[in-house]
Amino acid sequence: MWITSSEYSMKILLLPGDGIGPEVLAEVRRVIDALNAHHGLGLSVENGDIGGASLDRHGTPLAPHVLEMAKASDAVLMGAVGGPKWQSVSYELRPEQGLLNLRKGLGLYANLRPALCFPALADASTLKRDVIDGLDILFVRELIGGVYFGEPRGIETLPDGTKRGFNTQSYTTPEIERVARMAFDLARQREGRVCSVEKANVMESGLLWRETVTALHKREFSDVALSHMYADNCAMQLVRDPRQFDVILTDNLFGDILSDAAAMLTGSLGMLPSAALGEPGMPGLYEPIHGSAPDIAGKCIANPCAAILSLAMALRHQLGRPDLADLTEKAVSHVLDSGYRTGDLLGGEDTRLVGTEGMGRAIAERLSA
Amino acid sequence: MWITSSEYSMKILLLPGDGIGPEVLAEVRRVIDALNAHHGLGLSVENGDIGGASLDRHGTPLAPHVLEMAKASDAVLMGAVGGPKWQSVSYELRPEQGLLNLRKGLGLYANLRPALCFPALADASTLKRDVIDGLDILFVRELIGGVYFGEPRGIETLPDGTKRGFNTQSYTTPEIERVARMAFDLARQREGRVCSVEKANVMESGLLWRETVTALHKREFSDVALSHMYADNCAMQLVRDPRQFDVILTDNLFGDILSDAAAMLTGSLGMLPSAALGEPGMPGLYEPIHGSAPDIAGKCIANPCAAILSLAMALRHQLGRPDLADLTEKAVSHVLDSGYRTGDLLGGEDTRLVGTEGMGRAIAERLSA
Ligand SMILES: [Mg+2]
Ligand SMILES: [Mg+2]
Repeated sequence: MWITSSEYSMKILLLPGDGIGPEVLAEVRRVIDALNAHHGLGLSVENGDIGGASLDRHGTPLAPHVLEMAKASDAVLMGAVGGPKWQSVSYELRPEQGLLNLRKGLGLYANLRPALCFPALADASTLKRDVIDGLDILFVRELIGGVYFGEPRGIETLPDGTKRGFNTQSYTTPEIERVARMAFDLARQREGRVCSVEKANVMESGLLWRETVTALHKREFSDVALSHMYADNCAMQLVRDPRQFDVILTDNLFGDILSDAAAMLTGSLGMLPSAALGEPGMPGLYEPIHGSAPDIAGKCIANPCAAILSLAMALRHQLGRPDLADLTEKAVSHVLDSGYRTGDLLGGEDTRLVGTEGMGRAIAERLSA
Repeated sequence: MWITSSEYSMKILLLPGDGIGPEVLAEVRRVIDALNAHHGLGLSVENGDIGGASLDRHGTPLAPHVLEMAKASDAVLMGAVGGPKWQSVSYELRPEQGLLNLRKGLGLYANLRPALCFPALADASTLKRDVIDGLDILFVRELIGGVYFGEPRGIETLPDGTKRGFNTQSYTTPEIERVARMAFDLARQREGRVCSVEKANVMESGLLWRETVTALHKREFSDVALSHMYADNCAMQLVRDPRQFDVILTDNLFGDILSDAAAMLTGSLGMLPSAALGEPGMPGLYEPIHGSAPDIAGKCIANPCAAILSLAMALRHQLGRPDLADLTEKAVSHVLDSGYRTGDLLGGEDTRLVGTEGMGRAIAERLSA
């Protein structure tokens, strides 16, 4: 059931970026083709520049016309940005700035970070298999507020000649409500449990966070199970028994640290996707959590799974095809179970080392069966 | 070689506190007696009240005369504070307030938190034995500055009726220098490596932290190996390969989260001591990281090892007897190797379940041999 162009009902913008970005997005493209051809997805593809690639071509890490293309799309999927080639450019031209500008331009305030452990890869974790096998946490991290963005901030010289560095942690009720609402909504599609994490015991911003989440829960989401946890205890619980969690809702700073710890629990960073979402109707930005990996760029050995799973997140959260999201995730899982491994993944008996294209083809073939 | 009272050259103040505090401190007392009797320690002991016990007896969680006793001691060793009995008392009378007032009264700005994994207990960790066996990290966490104490702070109502919660992360050069100096000094007594952890990439307070630590290192501690790491990466590295670290120097908030994660890596929280240190000449406060455990208080089953290892920290860092610190730590390790286990520790073949006193006696006997 090959579809004609008139049957493309949705549009995704691919931003390959730098390093291994283009290689892994080529395999995403292959998976989209398979889903269009065999499952009636109807997703058209555009391409744009971002990061160092954009700097080289357009003199800026995010050109205005690319931001416009992003806004006109249903979803945006990025590869990766950055690399040694652009290390010495000025701060506002840095490749990473392209990503920040894109997030800002699309108003993406919620970062979705799954921590997933695939059974075939559970032994790659530093944690024991029985602690980690089947792990499936979804972090919902506030992305554009908190202490990384709060004002006032700076370094000042004090009267006695010493210096003082300061930042402001700040959250308003609406900032907390919109990201909490997203966490509750997502929990309804999962196990229906949200754990909200802050330091309400020692921080007023955390106290307002807890009060606001509690009130919203009571008002609109009493069907979801809500618990609260201090951030330091959450760090402990992620090590002690990470499978106790379903959705973890937290702020920008705590989310930064805790979601990275949780990702490392899985032992396979090359497998993990992410999403940044904003208001309903705005396209989300989907991307693997791995970087541009300049050391292996161009060698065709990068793992495309995280990028393909990022597409699955777009299918679930934005393109209205949770069925195809499931199908894609199952295809990845099946290919791993069949022994396919890129070089970053733990090999072993009955596994077969493949390159970027080998992995992408295996997943696309599974989706064409 | 039993010593006479005139041979007591140093004084320790024991503050048993609440819950299992008195039980575990009784075993510390037993170990002090053994070290006095058989190793010429010359440490005299005083007792004082803190926490709920103090509230019941003196109407305040820390009486002024106890603070004076603390100041007149060479070191202070606390059991634990808090419990359900005092849950409804007003904020300033809470048992925990006694601890905060004591820290403040002694000017204790550095929190030393070892994360140690004893070979006999390595299987209790959720991490694989080969990742965790022999772990020996020392966290040096700034304790009385940063976002938990910074001003301005509060919850304000905005013109549109919504609220804003805010806190201030703040560090001055002298605040950073004094805790960094302590970390470098301690590293010289260990493997000579300090990893300084912040978020200099997104926070000015972290940038000043990095610059100040770097300058101090260059000026006074160039024999110590210094590295820098972002806090989110540190959370990952603690899961990936925790044994890469020797001393981790960090601020109050990051230290709160990361030292708790590291403690949980060991799998045996009942084994971990801590210290809070201030200016040279001021007594430090030593205490197990476990709480007052009201659920098992009075049952004589609590693990006294963390309290006894807290005494070992005092011997090393303040009482000028690192030799006896080593001896005490080895006695604890030996007793575990011999199969002694309190109920909180992982049992197994060839282990013997003992109570608080059984564990304390075994360690004291080892020190009397
Ligand atoms: Mg991070
Ligand atoms: Mg803590």
